[in-house]
Amino acid sequence: MKEYIEQNKERFFEELFSILRIPSISAKAENKPDMQRCAERIAQLLREAGADEAGVYPSSGNPVVFGCKIADPSLSTVLVYGHYDVQPAEPLEKWNSDPFEPVIHDGAIWCRGANDDKGQLFMHIKAFEYLLRSGQLRHNVKFMFEGEEEIGSPSLPQWIRDHKEMLAADVCLVSDTTMLGENIPSINCGMRGLSYLEVKVTGPDKDLHSGHYGGAVANPITVLCEMIASLHTPDGKVAVPGFYDKVVNLSRKDRDLLAKAPFDREAYKKSIGVRELRGEKSYSTLERTGIRPCLDVCGIWGGYTGEGAKTVIPSEAHAKISMRLVPDQLSAEITPLFARHFKRIAPRSVTVEVKECEGGDGFLIPIDSPAYKAASRAITEVYGIEPVPSRGGGSIAVLAEVQKILGIDPLLMGFGLERDTIHSPNESYLLKQFFGGMESIALFYRYF
Amino acid sequence: MKEYIEQNKERFFEELFSILRIPSISAKAENKPDMQRCAERIAQLLREAGADEAGVYPSSGNPVVFGCKIADPSLSTVLVYGHYDVQPAEPLEKWNSDPFEPVIHDGAIWCRGANDDKGQLFMHIKAFEYLLRSGQLRHNVKFMFEGEEEIGSPSLPQWIRDHKEMLAADVCLVSDTTMLGENIPSINCGMRGLSYLEVKVTGPDKDLHSGHYGGAVANPITVLCEMIASLHTPDGKVAVPGFYDKVVNLSRKDRDLLAKAPFDREAYKKSIGVRELRGEKSYSTLERTGIRPCLDVCGIWGGYTGEGAKTVIPSEAHAKISMRLVPDQLSAEITPLFARHFKRIAPRSVTVEVKECEGGDGFLIPIDSPAYKAASRAITEVYGIEPVPSRGGGSIAVLAEVQKILGIDPLLMGFGLERDTIHSPNESYLLKQFFGGMESIALFYRYF
Repeated sequence: MKEYIEQNKERFFEELFSILRIPSISAKAENKPDMQRCAERIAQLLREAGADEAGVYPSSGNPVVFGCKIADPSLSTVLVYGHYDVQPAEPLEKWNSDPFEPVIHDGAIWCRGANDDKGQLFMHIKAFEYLLRSGQLRHNVKFMFEGEEEIGSPSLPQWIRDHKEMLAADVCLVSDTTMLGENIPSINCGMRGLSYLEVKVTGPDKDLHSGHYGGAVANPITVLCEMIASLHTPDGKVAVPGFYDKVVNLSRKDRDLLAKAPFDREAYKKSIGVRELRGEKSYSTLERTGIRPCLDVCGIWGGYTGEGAKTVIPSEAHAKISMRLVPDQLSAEITPLFARHFKRIAPRSVTVEVKECEGGDGFLIPIDSPAYKAASRAITEVYGIEPVPSRGGGSIAVLAEVQKILGIDPLLMGFGLERDTIHSPNESYLLKQFFGGMESIALFYRYF
Repeated sequence: MKEYIEQNKERFFEELFSILRIPSISAKAENKPDMQRCAERIAQLLREAGADEAGVYPSSGNPVVFGCKIADPSLSTVLVYGHYDVQPAEPLEKWNSDPFEPVIHDGAIWCRGANDDKGQLFMHIKAFEYLLRSGQLRHNVKFMFEGEEEIGSPSLPQWIRDHKEMLAADVCLVSDTTMLGENIPSINCGMRGLSYLEVKVTGPDKDLHSGHYGGAVANPITVLCEMIASLHTPDGKVAVPGFYDKVVNLSRKDRDLLAKAPFDREAYKKSIGVRELRGEKSYSTLERTGIRPCLDVCGIWGGYTGEGAKTVIPSEAHAKISMRLVPDQLSAEITPLFARHFKRIAPRSVTVEVKECEGGDGFLIPIDSPAYKAASRAITEVYGIEPVPSRGGGSIAVLAEVQKILGIDPLLMGFGLERDTIHSPNESYLLKQFFGGMESIALFYRYF
């Protein structure tokens, strides 16, 4: 495939850039038309690559792009999953270039979605195109690209149920994760689930003068801070009663296996610019992000946030709270557990509202499957190093549903790197990984 | 003066509205030109009312409006203080009408600044106009209106020092406070000081994916919340060591005197829509806002605050923190005390920056002075009830400086009401108070 890449590189960039330029932000209502536009462009790329029936399928939310190539019904079938929606680009002022105008420099593509997940799903279209055109395709291939992954895939499970036969496959191949390092190839064999909520604390029914009322009235910001502060124990555990009840505790042996993944604590700290790490006591950093659940505040706001000094006790304070879950914690149980707890700890001087935003379950993938072995062999061939099995801290909410509805395991062959800063300003995707990923995917088909 | 008001009402509204329409927000750099415009318009109104030397005087910050009428150097002199700058209007979406387009309905003027302080300073110009035109002015009157009160009057003290002789007077008359109620006239005999700071907590040097890093890295929002939560004891005291060291503790007798001010706890709770009040243990609500210091968070922000779910560990979290001080707490001591404490309690996993925004000291006013007695008699005549001495929780930072530099006591004859929601959306000023204030001021001159 190396040669094919070399010959078609410029066209690949043009095609990828045409979808990167579309601000398909699923979290924002104003970008609704962009979702349709992006889906249509990807369907067109699928058709041009040689897929049949490629088109934009309506769902109860953003449309799903589907396309397939059935070479021979007796051959095994690969279902490729990806998503064309992206995270919001805020804070905009921290980008070095327009978040929706891709640029190439320093050996990488820089743009929102360059990696997550437009860049990664694009590798699959091109590997498929190469195999098809060179007469090497010996599998049936189906593509399913959704537009709601970043908001928790609310519509896809029903869409999958509605198209169960059309989607029947032997494995679900996904490139939407990272490797441990540029020179430490890895295959993700588990992901965390997610419960995401928005909370609102209301004190007085209007903003008050902080001089006239200060000291006599519960300040909703202070109360929210106190409530958030109470959500962790001094040992870094999540202090929501029942939160750990169903957490699968790994055996010493399994933990030792995970500990084999190379990890450079100092380099890790340096890469994110912190003096000290912080997390649950008695667990390593990789365990904290891989096999342990956690709770984070993703956003907080209330009162006057403009320039200068406004002396006010605000009426409201808000926060967005995300919990990463591990097997067997179920989002459907943890979300209401948290909501009940958060309301229970509110003092009587305020009112608390909790809104569910997004949820999904974590999952584990067996590492002795034919698909895992094929992926491992393909990556070994391209990188010259055998990939280690890793546990990703992120969530692809819908994959637990794919497992349940279609009865097939996902295989997470991701080529991102931490340095890509997905979800943050200046998202990028190393060209080395972009092309290495295409090659690895093409080889996966050879060995699967 | 009643008749004069009746005859000139429409002109009064037109004149006041012409200054209310100017968005003279001192906290915002973009409103710099509005400060000059507003000052010039007020100087013009002073000239039209009959003041001499009325003009716009430069200071190291926003200009000061000055004007005077020296009837006879042997007569006693009243220095009227007010401010033409206003608080920001945010949150804009909570206003029922344009914050800078005054409207009259339900017996009140609705506009930012309707009360604080354009409406109140305007009463003084009109009472002066009436006395002058009707030949009843038997005092020298000087007006000093500044444009930086809402940001802590950083330039006025120096300006006062530079114009000490020009400003010489026997009393400093101020209408920039509230009465206890529409039917509970009161005169403010003390105000709190202020220390206002902005804090910034930085964790990782960029926003991080909350899945990849969640559980392993200190989240600056969580840390900020924990730090803020630690600033109060369970008893509602400010938990900054040394904070109470210089607080003047009132005697039982003085506390009993203050307790005579009528206070309806249920009506108070209802007026601000809360089920329960909260504050320092063992103190009443009026004591908590009058004679005790406090700490409030006026604003907080960090991470993703837009629509939907963005899964991010932000790099930074911010808060604006205000402390109301009582005699003899000095802002110049409390501000660095807080800054040092806040940095000291930061965990090593984050970096904390603290920025001083605003400061000023509290003060007390004797209630046996000729000025207090004249004001009390004037208000009694207009309201039919003798005003009670009260302690205001707010701050007019510069008045402690006036006391020090000019050696005169301020007299706080304010006609606002809590229902006016100054500093908040839908600020208003009851016409009854607006006209009652003018009458009371005119009578003050008669009895002083």
